[in-house]
Amino acid sequence: MYPYNPNVVSFSHALPRFVSGKDTPRAFLERCIEIISAREPALKAFVTLNLDAARAAADAATERYRAKRPLSMVDGCPVGIKDIMDTRDMPTQMGTPAFSGWQPRYDAACVQALRAGGAVIVGKTVTTAFACGATNVTVNPHDAQRTPGGSSSGSAASVGAGMLPVALGTQTQGSTLRPASYCGIVGFKPTHGVLTMQGVHPISLTHDHMGVLGGTLEDAWRIASHISLTSGNPGQPFLQRAADKLPRPAKPKRLMRFYSEGWDKEVEPATRAAFETLLKEMERSGIQIVDRSSDPAAAEFEDLMRSGFIERSLDITTYEMKWPYTQYVAMHGEMIEQRVRDRVAQAQNISPADYTARLAEKAEMQKKVKNLMRGFDGIVTLAASGPAPVGHAHTGSRTFLVYATFLGLPAFSLPLMRVDNQPVGLQLIGAAGKDGALCAHAHWMMRQLGT
Amino acid sequence: MYPYNPNVVSFSHALPRFVSGKDTPRAFLERCIEIISAREPALKAFVTLNLDAARAAADAATERYRAKRPLSMVDGCPVGIKDIMDTRDMPTQMGTPAFSGWQPRYDAACVQALRAGGAVIVGKTVTTAFACGATNVTVNPHDAQRTPGGSSSGSAASVGAGMLPVALGTQTQGSTLRPASYCGIVGFKPTHGVLTMQGVHPISLTHDHMGVLGGTLEDAWRIASHISLTSGNPGQPFLQRAADKLPRPAKPKRLMRFYSEGWDKEVEPATRAAFETLLKEMERSGIQIVDRSSDPAAAEFEDLMRSGFIERSLDITTYEMKWPYTQYVAMHGEMIEQRVRDRVAQAQNISPADYTARLAEKAEMQKKVKNLMRGFDGIVTLAASGPAPVGHAHTGSRTFLVYATFLGLPAFSLPLMRVDNQPVGLQLIGAAGKDGALCAHAHWMMRQLGT
Repeated sequence: MYPYNPNVVSFSHALPRFVSGKDTPRAFLERCIEIISAREPALKAFVTLNLDAARAAADAATERYRAKRPLSMVDGCPVGIKDIMDTRDMPTQMGTPAFSGWQPRYDAACVQALRAGGAVIVGKTVTTAFACGATNVTVNPHDAQRTPGGSSSGSAASVGAGMLPVALGTQTQGSTLRPASYCGIVGFKPTHGVLTMQGVHPISLTHDHMGVLGGTLEDAWRIASHISLTSGNPGQPFLQRAADKLPRPAKPKRLMRFYSEGWDKEVEPATRAAFETLLKEMERSGIQIVDRSSDPAAAEFEDLMRSGFIERSLDITTYEMKWPYTQYVAMHGEMIEQRVRDRVAQAQNISPADYTARLAEKAEMQKKVKNLMRGFDGIVTLAASGPAPVGHAHTGSRTFLVYATFLGLPAFSLPLMRVDNQPVGLQLIGAAGKDGALCAHAHWMMRQLGT
Repeated sequence: MYPYNPNVVSFSHALPRFVSGKDTPRAFLERCIEIISAREPALKAFVTLNLDAARAAADAATERYRAKRPLSMVDGCPVGIKDIMDTRDMPTQMGTPAFSGWQPRYDAACVQALRAGGAVIVGKTVTTAFACGATNVTVNPHDAQRTPGGSSSGSAASVGAGMLPVALGTQTQGSTLRPASYCGIVGFKPTHGVLTMQGVHPISLTHDHMGVLGGTLEDAWRIASHISLTSGNPGQPFLQRAADKLPRPAKPKRLMRFYSEGWDKEVEPATRAAFETLLKEMERSGIQIVDRSSDPAAAEFEDLMRSGFIERSLDITTYEMKWPYTQYVAMHGEMIEQRVRDRVAQAQNISPADYTARLAEKAEMQKKVKNLMRGFDGIVTLAASGPAPVGHAHTGSRTFLVYATFLGLPAFSLPLMRVDNQPVGLQLIGAAGKDGALCAHAHWMMRQLGT
């Protein structure tokens, strides 16, 4: 079913056999652990593994399925947790020596929700420092010479290698969808605020999103839905009113193709060709795809995104980094990465008036984009400028990803292309709050184009 | 200048003498410490005092004034910090044995901002458990038989006794303005979101406000402004664009008098008389005051507030208490107060659909109220149903306070009445985001009515 990444494992596919008694969460976990044992030494996806606790949780889930009383739609599902999310039974080290060995007292809201639903917390996955540092130790599961992408590196690599069916990430610029693209898995970043960030280390509250990395769309949606519906998330819309099942496949009628400056500046011929081929396949299926040359709304969107708005919007995230990063730099000095120290220094030069102006500009842009998207089922573009780059000095370009993040729009990276024998993701962006409708289109694409 | 509470001390009034060299922050602090030594044993306003660190900070501020280089408009100002706000050099114990001795690694954003500006952090002030428990050990500085109000009990008592010029509180229902009223000081709860809550223990993110308790309006505004302008607070409006000075006194032209059910059910004759006298004094100054009997907008506001909206809105805060309170109950059992356990139990019965409906209702109500308030400079009502009740089993009624809190509107409690020889506050409520304009009216009232 997923020829571009045969390694992935799926909880959703195993679930009917848990119910029928032909398989168990404990046996599922043991198969994951087998792959972890084989691949983790080279991949370095985990900071901490908690296999004893995971086995105990899987046994408890197994008992519940035997008794026909699973706790929730994620009962027994093994999950990896990005190491900027608080866990009461494992250190949370933020990818930085400044938090070496730090043990939170309580679970972040997402972890509380997963545990309460019976999910099996397997370990903490490698992140770049505070999810905004340059790089880390994890390598790409498809080619150890390449980066897995960041900052949710360990979550993406563990799922891409089939060590886990699903893992949590975050995205403030491109940190979920980029590693999803590089690791050949599904990345899902819901509408801003839909998934609670309480108990997750912040960069910029107005831009931080929780994301889910799944071997399959089913698992990514399942985990996101469960967290959305049970965490007590304050003040935000839910994925959909009854999000307990993956929305049925729905063929999009009309999509906007978005180029961005990335297409002109960063994309190599092989990636261009793969993307054009994929779009042609959609058109053959009867989907209308328009772009700046054929549609005024697409042209206006393209112009807006290239108007310098994104560059100015970076001031917002930088300003919000005053807390707590100013303290980190003051207390830990060079233990804090240079790029974080640079951001803190920049933050002091952004005035409240500038910040307020940028926020107003952002709100205005969101309004315009909402109107421009009315005639479309979604926007399609690349999820990354190409396959994962060779080398580990940085975690790749975020050019294609910042737009949906800054606008707070739901977006998927779908593993539907292959370039240089490496995965590349299609990015599908939807209207704010329409996560369910967008997922239905993603579902159609995975069914029709993913084989 | 403040005959209703001659005890209070004012940083703003001392500041010119710091600049001229006739007084110093260290000497100011020592005068505070003298009052702390005299009164704290009976009042029990502090959980933790850190006088050595405070003296060192005051000395550093003294040096800066000598060098004519103060760091900010709060340099050298002694401040008390409610014990649900993280402090890196003092335990943060949340008013509950479940957090006994807990030492955060970093300061909350408000504390970081104050420290960076040279403010002198004197100690942590007593709160009820998680700012939503029933009671605590602090007593009222005007009468030890009475409650100081809660949950920001220690902050209000310390300022009301003149142990500090100003202290930080929070308000999710009535936790800043109620103790301000009972302790005879100024309470200021800005528009929701204006003051950062990062690093402050949450009850309900959509309703939690930071508040400031000041012996004088000047000091309350000064501290709020400084935090608003320097904390890097994400995504919210500032108090005003150039909030570095107290807005000049501005006589309100037209005020709406709001009764609420509290007036009919809770207010004793002596308090009624004091309030009527105060309103008559305003009218004599030429302020037009209308109410439900004389103005359709006031009647509509009154009806809306009595429509059951507030009661239903309680579901929002309860739902959001799922995290982290569900964990606290699971892990600490009876160490967690019964009323918190009850809320956690209730939270499980509120569906995401109910929650979303309540949020939509709230947004609709905020829109209506915004329109209704257009013809008014503010709303006046009591800040409490009377003077502080005798006894310590609970911290008083919040009836008059929940409206502005649930609507997210800026509100002051001004110490302008006296009943049974005890202080009672006038509550002045403004339009969302118009904190500066409201403060100008509060300033006029303190000048014209507070003598």
